[in-house]
Amino acid sequence: MGQNLSMHIFKVNYSLIPLHDVILPVPSSKVLKNLILSGKFLPSLAKLVESEIKSKPLFISALGNGEFRYLSDDDKIMNVKANSRLNGFVSFPYIDEVYNEISEGVYETPYGKFSLIVNSVEILDIQRMRIEDYMNYNIYVKFVTPVILSSKILLPPSLKDRYKNIKPGFSLLPSVGLIIAYAYRSYYSILGRTDEQEWATRAFKLSVLSNALAKIVGFNLSPKTVIIGRDEKNNLRKSRGVVGWIEFNIAERKIKKMAIKCFTISSYLGLGKSRGIGLGEIRVTLKKTK
Amino acid sequence: MGQNLSMHIFKVNYSLIPLHDVILPVPSSKVLKNLILSGKFLPSLAKLVESEIKSKPLFISALGNGEFRYLSDDDKIMNVKANSRLNGFVSFPYIDEVYNEISEGVYETPYGKFSLIVNSVEILDIQRMRIEDYMNYNIYVKFVTPVILSSKILLPPSLKDRYKNIKPGFSLLPSVGLIIAYAYRSYYSILGRTDEQEWATRAFKLSVLSNALAKIVGFNLSPKTVIIGRDEKNNLRKSRGVVGWIEFNIAERKIKKMAIKCFTISSYLGLGKSRGIGLGEIRVTLKKTK
Repeated sequence: MGQNLSMHIFKVNYSLIPLHDVILPVPSSKVLKNLILSGKFLPSLAKLVESEIKSKPLFISALGNGEFRYLSDDDKIMNVKANSRLNGFVSFPYIDEVYNEISEGVYETPYGKFSLIVNSVEILDIQRMRIEDYMNYNIYVKFVTPVILSSKILLPPSLKDRYKNIKPGFSLLPSVGLIIAYAYRSYYSILGRTDEQEWATRAFKLSVLSNALAKIVGFNLSPKTVIIGRDEKNNLRKSRGVVGWIEFNIAERKIKKMAIKCFTISSYLGLGKSRGIGLGEIRVTLKKTK
Repeated sequence: MGQNLSMHIFKVNYSLIPLHDVILPVPSSKVLKNLILSGKFLPSLAKLVESEIKSKPLFISALGNGEFRYLSDDDKIMNVKANSRLNGFVSFPYIDEVYNEISEGVYETPYGKFSLIVNSVEILDIQRMRIEDYMNYNIYVKFVTPVILSSKILLPPSLKDRYKNIKPGFSLLPSVGLIIAYAYRSYYSILGRTDEQEWATRAFKLSVLSNALAKIVGFNLSPKTVIIGRDEKNNLRKSRGVVGWIEFNIAERKIKKMAIKCFTISSYLGLGKSRGIGLGEIRVTLKKTK
């Protein structure tokens, strides 16, 4: 992996148009995953898709339209009519091979026959991000699909061993420090984590400081459960996360700049767990303070 | 103050029954405050009511009924009919004199004539609190009146000077660490803070660990603005805080026990800022985990 990572994130926005009525898989991101793994679209991403590394720099969105996403909270079948337009995106660090693999076409999948259209390719150069004139703006983060957050990433790295047997589980309500700690992970997953201990310490300090210096000015958050597939016994597997939005400010200039940088990266790569299947999709905007 | 503080918290639950139609002051806790300061009810609390110490161990609730409280978010006049029953409570550390001052009667105030009835007196002995068999329960905290929280209390005490000019303001969305840090303040306000630096360090560690080891299992929170009076130019003064509830678990035994202890104290003394006028009223219950 390491040598292939770059400082550019690619975001390929595409549409999938079923040529006949289809039933979408759960989660609906599986359609694109299948196209990658079967070598039809962006085949060079297959290794990354199958990789088991932590904080993997890959996001495959659920399919949908606008801010609607096909994500089911019950066993309901997700029918889609022929010729509907399903939008999605996939984000990943740039690798050379991929440039010639962004190919449109009509593809067979186990879920039906789809026409794939590439709408746009966005490129984020994380070494050249311009973040200026930001002190008069609040940071507004919208959680489009459930964000799954584990509070334990806020543990001081020095206490990791001491509490290694304690498993608090996922936390439904985000703090500013918790989402920044996760966004920072997206950032360092791109940089190619050479010294995890050092990054963990920096992430911890950043989360403590941002929790202490943030002002949350508004929010509308609620828990949401979604089905993410079936286990080996064919039982439904569910994940519970948080959707909605949170608007906040950080009073300290440097920390705020770092936060904006990390959240921008997360708006490509997602936030929290299960980003490879489309959970943790976020939008980030700066809103003029009143 | 110091020598008068004790390890017992008194909570006097009372009813005020207006003998004629009245207009309640804003905030409605002013009625009881007036009775204390004018020497009619619990006059020994006058010094504490007027004290400007931080984290003062005093809570004077807004008037209301059940979980309804007379707290206005606009300029609406709060009319109350004659013979209505308005409930409220006042909590404070036990001092000797007060025992003979819990007196019922009919009292004149600038807001009308009220009959005062004492419904019950609860006493919390914080040295003898029994917290047992709690690992199978979640902590459920209900914010009855807006809780006003300043995120800056989560700053590491060692960085206090470095960020002394940064004023993030109040944070509308609580984290577990933030509310525990405030609850811990209620606790040490009772103990009579002999070494503030030491307590601040302990509060910081407790908040970091509880943020890292907590699992938030449910919540329903929303921002709420209330009027807390008028300034010298007769303009409305408003406070914006959070109401609703949050249910969480803490996976580590000792931290959880400390959290339950602190929140129990806060269920008497309130949480956050402006507790002396009835903001930050909370209820705490333990809920069996499923």
